[in-house]
Amino acid sequence: MPMYDEVLNHANSERFKRIRSLTDHKRREKANRCVVEGPQAVRELLQWMPQAALDLYVAVDSAEPDAAFLNPTIGQLAGMGLRANCYVHKATLQVLHHVSADCQGVFAIADLRELHSATEEAMNAAMESAAHAGESDEAQTAPMVAAFWQIRDPGNAGTAIRSADAAGCACVIFVGDCVDLYNQKVIRSTTGSLFHLPVVTMSEQEFDEWRAEHNFKLMAADVYGTEDRKPQMLPTILQQRAFTHEPTCVLFGNEARGLEADMLNKADEIVSIPIYGKAESLNLATSASILLMSMAMSSRVETI
Amino acid sequence: MPMYDEVLNHANSERFKRIRSLTDHKRREKANRCVVEGPQAVRELLQWMPQAALDLYVAVDSAEPDAAFLNPTIGQLAGMGLRANCYVHKATLQVLHHVSADCQGVFAIADLRELHSATEEAMNAAMESAAHAGESDEAQTAPMVAAFWQIRDPGNAGTAIRSADAAGCACVIFVGDCVDLYNQKVIRSTTGSLFHLPVVTMSEQEFDEWRAEHNFKLMAADVYGTEDRKPQMLPTILQQRAFTHEPTCVLFGNEARGLEADMLNKADEIVSIPIYGKAESLNLATSASILLMSMAMSSRVETI
Repeated sequence: MPMYDEVLNHANSERFKRIRSLTDHKRREKANRCVVEGPQAVRELLQWMPQAALDLYVAVDSAEPDAAFLNPTIGQLAGMGLRANCYVHKATLQVLHHVSADCQGVFAIADLRELHSATEEAMNAAMESAAHAGESDEAQTAPMVAAFWQIRDPGNAGTAIRSADAAGCACVIFVGDCVDLYNQKVIRSTTGSLFHLPVVTMSEQEFDEWRAEHNFKLMAADVYGTEDRKPQMLPTILQQRAFTHEPTCVLFGNEARGLEADMLNKADEIVSIPIYGKAESLNLATSASILLMSMAMSSRVETI
Repeated sequence: MPMYDEVLNHANSERFKRIRSLTDHKRREKANRCVVEGPQAVRELLQWMPQAALDLYVAVDSAEPDAAFLNPTIGQLAGMGLRANCYVHKATLQVLHHVSADCQGVFAIADLRELHSATEEAMNAAMESAAHAGESDEAQTAPMVAAFWQIRDPGNAGTAIRSADAAGCACVIFVGDCVDLYNQKVIRSTTGSLFHLPVVTMSEQEFDEWRAEHNFKLMAADVYGTEDRKPQMLPTILQQRAFTHEPTCVLFGNEARGLEADMLNKADEIVSIPIYGKAESLNLATSASILLMSMAMSSRVETI
């Protein structure tokens, strides 16, 4: 695919109006397109799901046809875009900022159907691998999955996905009425983890069926627990190592309301992060990062 | 102190112009005032450092003299403000939003000199207590301090302070050229931890002298280490429990550049968080939360 010589510098052209409309969830669904912004997310898209990348918009330093790329990173991404058979468009930074003030000089338009189908494939591969974990290699740890019920804040969602990726989770599941995965801010906050870790959405019922089918224990992260069952403290759980030997799904609740009783009642264990100082709480993304990474480190230490 | 009947509803009055000018670092220094915004931060200010709270601005639901508080939380904070001898001013939400779009209906004006002196007092008490840790109670853990070199992003700084508080750190030290502690976004992101955990700023040299004086080991968090010394992985450090028995200062670097060689060379140990998945890295606030909380949990598990 070609790189166009023309430098786009009309923020109000039909093209950019259409792209800006993709900030709206319904418009994304209808157009089957989403915007992937920022160098890190774009790089991961082009590397892991190049077939989903349709157009790449890169910033150049003037509106002249011989304008140079804004910086070497942008130039490198333009090269990756060409090799991935994207249409690469040059535009002024000012015009790109009209689409996204946070794009740092580059965004891609991706095909949602391709993203969904690549994610489904990755999810099947991950579950296949999880089902056989430990068979061939004794040092292999039991698979862990991170699930989020009614997570609503895009920044939290993105950071949580990035941390689940760092902790080596097999996949991430958004359960119930969550923020749209293909919201620009979610994508940017994952810094590309969305493209190399399968992240899927399910209803509460689908989530129950999924756990039963794949035989995952459910650990619910909650500060209060239910009337009958108070949470265990995380260090106790880590010490017991009860969850490091079997497939475990760690479920986190809504930012404001946590997990409701009917979700907590399904859990094999309820766990809470201890607060040693005077802070009242930790936010959701921070809690998820601490809990998932502690579990990951703890399970690997034992198998060393 | 009184609560005024009048409802302030002129965003462009001299009063609010003066308050808005406090978003500027130099203006804050000159006026010796800062803005504390959001219910959680305001509550902690009124609870822990009431002597520093000068004025409280609370949202009411109309510009009429008999207007009701915007919600019960705001009403409760107005009561706390009166008991803390604040001047309590009613204003429309629209006017408050002109000062801060994120204030959620309440902000306070605080006296920087009072905050500094209360922090100094709290810092002395914390160091006094750290010096005697373990003497009277064998189960007491060794004191931990979190330090940040050239931390620049206000949201990162606030989240990091909140996590250091949750992890039971004795204090937080901002080293070198960092974001101003009394930046509104830092204060809001700490959700009030700034008012019950001593947080101070030091030059690099002051930081060295401080560690020597108080006999704190230095653990530097860094992904790369130096040419001569690669970082130890966090699970190894936790297993060895080398740092859970002695006063330890955990130092984190700049968001983009990490720690420079001369800072790393001073460290007794360099530590890195393992990445088990395909994520490239974790952001600074997430890394600090994981590392500080892991250390805190690990040191307490042993002493149970």
